[in-house]
Amino acid sequence: MLGMTANLPMTVPMDGMPDRITIYEVGPRDGLQNEKSVVPTEVKAEFVQRLVGAGLETVETTSFVPPSWIPQLSDAPDLLQQLADTGHGPKRPVLVPNERGLDNALAAGVGAIAIFGSATETFAQKNLNRSVAESVEMFTPVVRRAREAGLWVRAYVSMCFGDPWEGPVPVEQVVDVCARLMDLGCDQLSIGDTIGVGTVGHVAKLLESLDAQGIPASKTAVHFHDTYGQALSNTLTALRHGVTVVDASTGGLGGCPYARSATGNLATEDLVWACRGLGIETGVDLDALVGTSLWMAEQLGRPSPSAVVRALGGA
Amino acid sequence: MLGMTANLPMTVPMDGMPDRITIYEVGPRDGLQNEKSVVPTEVKAEFVQRLVGAGLETVETTSFVPPSWIPQLSDAPDLLQQLADTGHGPKRPVLVPNERGLDNALAAGVGAIAIFGSATETFAQKNLNRSVAESVEMFTPVVRRAREAGLWVRAYVSMCFGDPWEGPVPVEQVVDVCARLMDLGCDQLSIGDTIGVGTVGHVAKLLESLDAQGIPASKTAVHFHDTYGQALSNTLTALRHGVTVVDASTGGLGGCPYARSATGNLATEDLVWACRGLGIETGVDLDALVGTSLWMAEQLGRPSPSAVVRALGGA
Repeated sequence: MLGMTANLPMTVPMDGMPDRITIYEVGPRDGLQNEKSVVPTEVKAEFVQRLVGAGLETVETTSFVPPSWIPQLSDAPDLLQQLADTGHGPKRPVLVPNERGLDNALAAGVGAIAIFGSATETFAQKNLNRSVAESVEMFTPVVRRAREAGLWVRAYVSMCFGDPWEGPVPVEQVVDVCARLMDLGCDQLSIGDTIGVGTVGHVAKLLESLDAQGIPASKTAVHFHDTYGQALSNTLTALRHGVTVVDASTGGLGGCPYARSATGNLATEDLVWACRGLGIETGVDLDALVGTSLWMAEQLGRPSPSAVVRALGGA
Repeated sequence: MLGMTANLPMTVPMDGMPDRITIYEVGPRDGLQNEKSVVPTEVKAEFVQRLVGAGLETVETTSFVPPSWIPQLSDAPDLLQQLADTGHGPKRPVLVPNERGLDNALAAGVGAIAIFGSATETFAQKNLNRSVAESVEMFTPVVRRAREAGLWVRAYVSMCFGDPWEGPVPVEQVVDVCARLMDLGCDQLSIGDTIGVGTVGHVAKLLESLDAQGIPASKTAVHFHDTYGQALSNTLTALRHGVTVVDASTGGLGGCPYARSATGNLATEDLVWACRGLGIETGVDLDALVGTSLWMAEQLGRPSPSAVVRALGGA
């Protein structure tokens, strides 16, 4: 392998880009929930600790969904207990699907939660077993009680660009669902391209439409999957539109179970590389992150799909 | 596999993007020259014919370098003879390293050639066995004689963003080499990120600097490798700066032998997907192209690194 240092990108800033972004790391939750095998709780805890150690401020840690839905994350209470002992400080949201999940999250002492809505009726039915309107109704007491308890609340909206059953999703429909969820009092919106079909013009249009409806880029995060190789391009477009919170998964872990593809979320390393080239601060130590991905790939028994991990890891 | 149609991106144009681009396909040359195994001439011929059949206007077909340098392409005369019989019309440039190569290319009846310079002294020595100045001297009669013979001439410049031995390459140095090669009378410049370290701000700065030195985007093509996952983002940045010729390799074939990575050139399919989303005309039939990549992957005995090929091919 060539020396890493010689290959680091030259830093050349670009007009219209932010000075700093926050990476919202989703590997332990969005990544591991899509793994076939169940990762031991100890490995998950070490994964989260390594991510925090590499400089990631926000790490979505697990999910309080019923174990029958996602057995991969059924150890949520144990995992949080193990992590509580480590004394790490950064924000570690957990996903909660309903009031029961919120109860469990509150019992575990979390400080931040995320709810998970859908921009399409078909996915709402398949994922939440109810209509979009019914899911907003279900989330209403979850958000109200979470805020009363002082929690920070994020609203994911999935299928914002395309849906495997419905095809392309109209921008107005997405904006409508986003507005209804944000009206509940959420702190942050994350627009998800769950099946990775979005392209840069579509991203720009959705962000402009959200802004026109009173949801500014400063409240919006982006969540791209790399199914068709567009995740980083879409993310950089969002940054030029004022977004400063980006969802990414270390090593490119994850993937949508409804799209047959080897690729998952935008790889955190590929994003960090782009930001380093642009002089955008992320707070992340790239070497430590690549080391974490190589370690995790060993645990999972398969190589990371991240280009940066493959290149720097000498794979 | 889900239906392809349901997953196609929604077309949403973006300000500042061209209506149409020309894809300069480099798979048969840049792709296959980096394969360990030598692909049979008949397979290469079928590959080129399939690419042309899928709508690619320009396909760089082979290279007239000495067989001892690149045995993978030592069948150049045979390949061109096989292709001449097929009556395909589009532009099919071949690489020539020196006057001897030009002689052979002229004997084979080609209509377009490409020369291959370096932005750095180290790579000029390693690849051409001479200094940058000496290589410009070597190319001078090649370009003059090619133009006298009525050929179209492209000048590649490699290591325009970083060099594995020298690290980041100063933009002024790159512009200087590009200007010297274009001054010889070349029709088109292709700026190459041979080791894939470039990022979007760097791309914008180089294109602006070239333009300031009298080499406009209308004469410049871009050639990105996806080693660190930046190829498509860099390409889209170039399009916003007026570039309309993009080098890409079907299936993402290729790769720099000096950088250990599984990924090679920007995959033509991933570019076509992005363009389809943006409403940018490429003339390419995506289904036919994906089919070609799946066929070629079978010939090579390994899967394509293209995200689109993996997703649409059901791999």
